[in-house]
Amino acid sequence: MKPQNKRLWWERQDLCYQDGTLFFAGKSVTDLLRTTGTPAFFYNGKRMLQNIGRLHKALDQLGAHKIFYAIKANRFAPVLTHIKNGATCGVDVCSPGELLHAFSCGFSCNEISYTANSMTDAELKLLADNPDVALNCDSLSTIRRLAKFCSHRRIGIRVNPAMGIGYRDNETLKYSGDKTTKFGIYREQFDDALQLAEKHNFIVDTIHFHTGCGYLNNQLSLFSEILDATHWFLDKVKDLAFVNLGGGLGVPHDIDDKQLDLDAWVSVINSHFSGKGITICVEPGDYIAKDSGILVLEVNTVEKKRNTDFVGVNGGFNLAIEPTFYGLPCEPVVPTQKIDKMKPVTIVGNINESLDVWKDNFSMPDQIEEGDPLVFINAGGYASSMMSNHCMRGQVSENLLV
Amino acid sequence: MKPQNKRLWWERQDLCYQDGTLFFAGKSVTDLLRTTGTPAFFYNGKRMLQNIGRLHKALDQLGAHKIFYAIKANRFAPVLTHIKNGATCGVDVCSPGELLHAFSCGFSCNEISYTANSMTDAELKLLADNPDVALNCDSLSTIRRLAKFCSHRRIGIRVNPAMGIGYRDNETLKYSGDKTTKFGIYREQFDDALQLAEKHNFIVDTIHFHTGCGYLNNQLSLFSEILDATHWFLDKVKDLAFVNLGGGLGVPHDIDDKQLDLDAWVSVINSHFSGKGITICVEPGDYIAKDSGILVLEVNTVEKKRNTDFVGVNGGFNLAIEPTFYGLPCEPVVPTQKIDKMKPVTIVGNINESLDVWKDNFSMPDQIEEGDPLVFINAGGYASSMMSNHCMRGQVSENLLV
Repeated sequence: MKPQNKRLWWERQDLCYQDGTLFFAGKSVTDLLRTTGTPAFFYNGKRMLQNIGRLHKALDQLGAHKIFYAIKANRFAPVLTHIKNGATCGVDVCSPGELLHAFSCGFSCNEISYTANSMTDAELKLLADNPDVALNCDSLSTIRRLAKFCSHRRIGIRVNPAMGIGYRDNETLKYSGDKTTKFGIYREQFDDALQLAEKHNFIVDTIHFHTGCGYLNNQLSLFSEILDATHWFLDKVKDLAFVNLGGGLGVPHDIDDKQLDLDAWVSVINSHFSGKGITICVEPGDYIAKDSGILVLEVNTVEKKRNTDFVGVNGGFNLAIEPTFYGLPCEPVVPTQKIDKMKPVTIVGNINESLDVWKDNFSMPDQIEEGDPLVFINAGGYASSMMSNHCMRGQVSENLLV
Repeated sequence: MKPQNKRLWWERQDLCYQDGTLFFAGKSVTDLLRTTGTPAFFYNGKRMLQNIGRLHKALDQLGAHKIFYAIKANRFAPVLTHIKNGATCGVDVCSPGELLHAFSCGFSCNEISYTANSMTDAELKLLADNPDVALNCDSLSTIRRLAKFCSHRRIGIRVNPAMGIGYRDNETLKYSGDKTTKFGIYREQFDDALQLAEKHNFIVDTIHFHTGCGYLNNQLSLFSEILDATHWFLDKVKDLAFVNLGGGLGVPHDIDDKQLDLDAWVSVINSHFSGKGITICVEPGDYIAKDSGILVLEVNTVEKKRNTDFVGVNGGFNLAIEPTFYGLPCEPVVPTQKIDKMKPVTIVGNINESLDVWKDNFSMPDQIEEGDPLVFINAGGYASSMMSNHCMRGQVSENLLV
């Protein structure tokens, strides 16, 4: 393989080879590593702002709208403050810890939505004490217990339209469907929820739903069907001012995926909600964070076992759980293209578990050597935020590039 | 249901109901919670020592033997020091972090085995600097690179007998089998490994293998077949002094499981290795830790959604990953038995993911209320040691009871 002129599927202006050297956020990955070593996450702050900007541009076609970045995707403090400074974008949080963290990074109550489940009384008191946080209640129990601490609060209700959506129909990424899930309030209990809210003088101004993660273009017709199913709920809410569509906008994970067409996505939304005087809210996490981050590890073991060529690296599934536990494709990339033939290898981590496999039977340059760095793209979302110190192999630096 | 006289399948002397109140380690769980609140892990130090004692008693039939507790199961520092003080038991570690942690908890080099994969050069230098740690090399690369930092070191070789074993044939718990894994050195490369060791003047005194986790009685015949497959390796090692069988001894997870019969287990080992002058080593993790721990959460949401009765608690799969990602059965238990009829419920956590389900369609007392504690047994192993701060819901106390 010669250093390629033809771009690979994941290459873009801020993540591409230049004369065979991988550049990310305007810097060569090799140079970046001189400062940090490995394992290291790098986040491109500009890319995050561009992703938000692209969303705003599309949503502008709707008129009034709000974006709340779901920080559960990546809550690295410098990332949050960078978004606060650089974009018109709030944050969605899902726990007291995340709420206080959002405050600590510079966000104000009126820039924060709170969408959680199995909430404690202490959590509800915190929300009562911060009435300007947009609280989406996802159960009758939440509404009933919130009334212990306040009344006349504006609230949202998370509903469950009993339909789910997920990347490549991945069941672990669907939040709804035939099987009843813990999320939101179903039709069967919705009237009770509205009555309960009224009894406690809460003003229901928002309907919220989030039915899955990672949808792309070929799922937009399903997305439309889901929106269709939400009208039943919306029509019952007299003070409705906001519809929060949740997150779930996907990014390409491998060569078979295409970028989500935001204009087509907005057309779907528009066809359902235009002319209703409703502000549309969205809560993307991955769409903003995932393709803005890379994880760089170092190859320490190159060895044939039986007939399989293994490439062992200095980080395992505890640093980025999605390939192992969610079955999401994960693309390994070399920082320096080599003039070499390709061969299939199995890339494994350093955790003592059989499922600690980054990539099985993947075509890589034949001359990968012990000591070479190895880059995993799409590591900006649901990687560091879910990482563990399993086997005490949790040491990794996080680095914002601005 | 009346408070029961008949014991439930998991009840034992240190974990049982007394007049309808759950006692653990001699204390009522309700009393324990007065100090700690929830979420909280409790570990019964005595039970851990008893588990080690039971292993020793069985292994005494073999003569010389060593137990290395695999701390990746539970590395809570008070637990490690308690084991150091109370048992004749070393520890098995799998990373530099774990090695230094074992030192910090009181263990000496000669009480530690080190069994890792995808090791870095820095890691190998650390092992060169601590020659009395029993290092099990699981690749030719490890042996070759260790020679950069030392020679004449005693080493073990982890071999892969190409057969796997796991709780109820669970694939995620098998470390070997038809598919080639990253673990150990296969027959195809074993002669090269021995030659490499000899070239660098390493003395191979140990053969190590570990082929899976959670095996119980009905898998002992498979265990015997695996031991059978290891003789091919043992016969080639001239300075062999130790055979390390790894860990993998299981504990019952539900009513269908029986306690592992240690005498039967030792008989299998004896039939393979007796009279060879070999010291048998084992590295159990779960067998020592798992049934010694409980996780106590609090119910905050009891609510019907569509036709499903949900019980929501203040902790999710990030605190104990096995039910969600390894499909291991997880038994919820009430601290106070209620005179009540039973009904099926779905117990869910507080993480914003659809797979955050503790137990689906499980029969529980009808009168479970918001505010009730809920106990999960078998939470002593691979729970806190793998936990994450996903959604910033990682707050949990750990408490050793002695």
